[in-house]
Amino acid sequence: MRDVAVLGYGMTPVSEHWDRSLKDLAGEAVLGALRDAQRERADFLIVSNMLAASQASGQLNLGAQIADWCGLQGIEAYKAESACSSGGSAFRAGVLAVASGQVDVAIVVGAEKMTEILGPEVTAGLASAADADYEAPQGPSFVALNALIMQRYMHEYGWPHEAFAPFSINAHTNALHNPFARLHERITIEDYHKSRMVCNPINLLDASPIGDGAAALVLGAADRHTAGGGRPRLLVMGSASATDSLAIHDRRQPLRLSAAETSAQRAYQMAGLTPAEIDFFELHDAFSIMSALSLEACGFAAPGQGPRLGLEGVILPGGRLPVATHGGLKARGHPVGATGVYQLVEVVRQLWGEAGGNQLARAATGMAQNIGGSGATITTHILRRDD
Amino acid sequence: MRDVAVLGYGMTPVSEHWDRSLKDLAGEAVLGALRDAQRERADFLIVSNMLAASQASGQLNLGAQIADWCGLQGIEAYKAESACSSGGSAFRAGVLAVASGQVDVAIVVGAEKMTEILGPEVTAGLASAADADYEAPQGPSFVALNALIMQRYMHEYGWPHEAFAPFSINAHTNALHNPFARLHERITIEDYHKSRMVCNPINLLDASPIGDGAAALVLGAADRHTAGGGRPRLLVMGSASATDSLAIHDRRQPLRLSAAETSAQRAYQMAGLTPAEIDFFELHDAFSIMSALSLEACGFAAPGQGPRLGLEGVILPGGRLPVATHGGLKARGHPVGATGVYQLVEVVRQLWGEAGGNQLARAATGMAQNIGGSGATITTHILRRDD
Repeated sequence: MRDVAVLGYGMTPVSEHWDRSLKDLAGEAVLGALRDAQRERADFLIVSNMLAASQASGQLNLGAQIADWCGLQGIEAYKAESACSSGGSAFRAGVLAVASGQVDVAIVVGAEKMTEILGPEVTAGLASAADADYEAPQGPSFVALNALIMQRYMHEYGWPHEAFAPFSINAHTNALHNPFARLHERITIEDYHKSRMVCNPINLLDASPIGDGAAALVLGAADRHTAGGGRPRLLVMGSASATDSLAIHDRRQPLRLSAAETSAQRAYQMAGLTPAEIDFFELHDAFSIMSALSLEACGFAAPGQGPRLGLEGVILPGGRLPVATHGGLKARGHPVGATGVYQLVEVVRQLWGEAGGNQLARAATGMAQNIGGSGATITTHILRRDD
Repeated sequence: MRDVAVLGYGMTPVSEHWDRSLKDLAGEAVLGALRDAQRERADFLIVSNMLAASQASGQLNLGAQIADWCGLQGIEAYKAESACSSGGSAFRAGVLAVASGQVDVAIVVGAEKMTEILGPEVTAGLASAADADYEAPQGPSFVALNALIMQRYMHEYGWPHEAFAPFSINAHTNALHNPFARLHERITIEDYHKSRMVCNPINLLDASPIGDGAAALVLGAADRHTAGGGRPRLLVMGSASATDSLAIHDRRQPLRLSAAETSAQRAYQMAGLTPAEIDFFELHDAFSIMSALSLEACGFAAPGQGPRLGLEGVILPGGRLPVATHGGLKARGHPVGATGVYQLVEVVRQLWGEAGGNQLARAATGMAQNIGGSGATITTHILRRDD
């Protein structure tokens, strides 16, 4: 089993890119990552995307298309998909490829172009992450499924809605310093209270905005390649993925993200680390309830106590466990199939001390968790600077 | 780099499965493969599929869904997609996962349910394997793109249409003995001449039928696991994938499958074998022209000479290089995202001497090649019985 290192990264801002195609966005990220890694070629390109096959453009075979667009003729390529955790799955596939010894250098690129899709079609596309046999036909949108979870969570554990506000406020504040973020709006607790209801109890400030964008990472065998620009070695210490039932009603404990728990435990074990040794955490705050559930599943809070980490400031940049340090899904934006790679790029920027106005004081070990569906496919990765 | 072995397989017949869902089909293949491998669990499930996300059912996140349906709670899972070579890409991902040392036992399952989709929607779905920016908007269906290639090939090399008949006749004859095949109709050269034109020069007997079905393989570390039933060790000797431009007009030599050439060369090199050492070849005969191009790209015939192997009987079960030994895409059927896994299951059945009425006399080393798009993403795998 070879050690896998990050050699470089690239990304586009998350935005409404009306003048650029999916290929343009993916190409900018891939070529940027290769430049950053000071490499011209790689052996393997893995693409993550969610909606190009259906609502966006009716395009399959994105691996070949993006490889060709980037001038990487002949390279091995395919697409990985697990709904909103496609980016995490692609990164996992890249790690396995390099670890295998059969691939020397791999590029992982997450790309999504979705703001041009009509509203109801976006809703239909996101709903395809839920169970098309038992959930979608009943009519709930994807936000409605998350609202059911949040409603029940508040009922079970007695939290008022405002207990979730700190997740949103922290994400928006952090995004102010991130030029790649979709939203640059400082928000207050009053804004949160006044925010328009989307699906009770999820209001607009509990929900992440969609977006267009692409992010890429270059991975290589740690014993053969060094990072671009003489930067310190960054190792993938923990890499894991796990699944749970697609439909919420099939889960034994709908308020526990069992796939997050399993994948986090696997990642900790592989890394030989405990939750206490994680310096910061890029979590999947597609909805504020998911922040709470993710923190609980990863061992940072007891079941039902996730909101406490927001209320007590633990998640702030100066806290014990900063989260969403570049704005998270909530304010950096959520280009669904690309999000998992954005999270990992943000971990890498922190570890290399390149996070600009978002730089944390202590950032040697970072974790990212990416959730597909309402908890069905969840990847956890732990990266560490080796110096 | 660990050696990867095949431990077992399972599949459903390729048919019109009106009474069964995609999950039912995939589940039968997965559970059958696990039973065949005499195992209850695995660490990793990789699913290949092409149309569930779009025309079929609007279902993403198939990895989690099928894992749950099979009772494999918590298992790592995601979907691999590269259009019609999704099955080959998934197998490749399974090989890399096991070779990495991070995954001990992997299940690869290809599943597709497409005969319930309305005709024009199937055409649209298949066209999404071509370039959605530069090919599809001009109106050609996927068969039309292949017809352009075949037309040009016949013009360049001077072959009459009937030179392609042996590919089709051989496939139909072989399928007669395969209970899992979609078509059980013996055809003659007269049938071929009279066959209805689909898109000049491709007639109905040049084209493979779509179908519903699922096929699965269990892979494991060769030094830790043995095949089910005390069968001889089957090693994945060569495993490779390569890409070319998605759009035909972008290719330097549209009559050469450069991605087939590249992936075959990589597979030969990894296996330490030459084309002369391959006993039989499961090729991607979605259209008869693809049989010719695939044989040429893999070094079995000179450029422009592929049809000669059909005319001279080389490809017959008693010939030097039997192809489509279970009926190929042409007569076993082409459940698009599952096809690549069916091909590999057929290689395994030959190597283990379990091919029934299709059993070849000499079958120690077999090769499978899976084509996505009109030549954009192509995987090549070489398997060998180790006794």
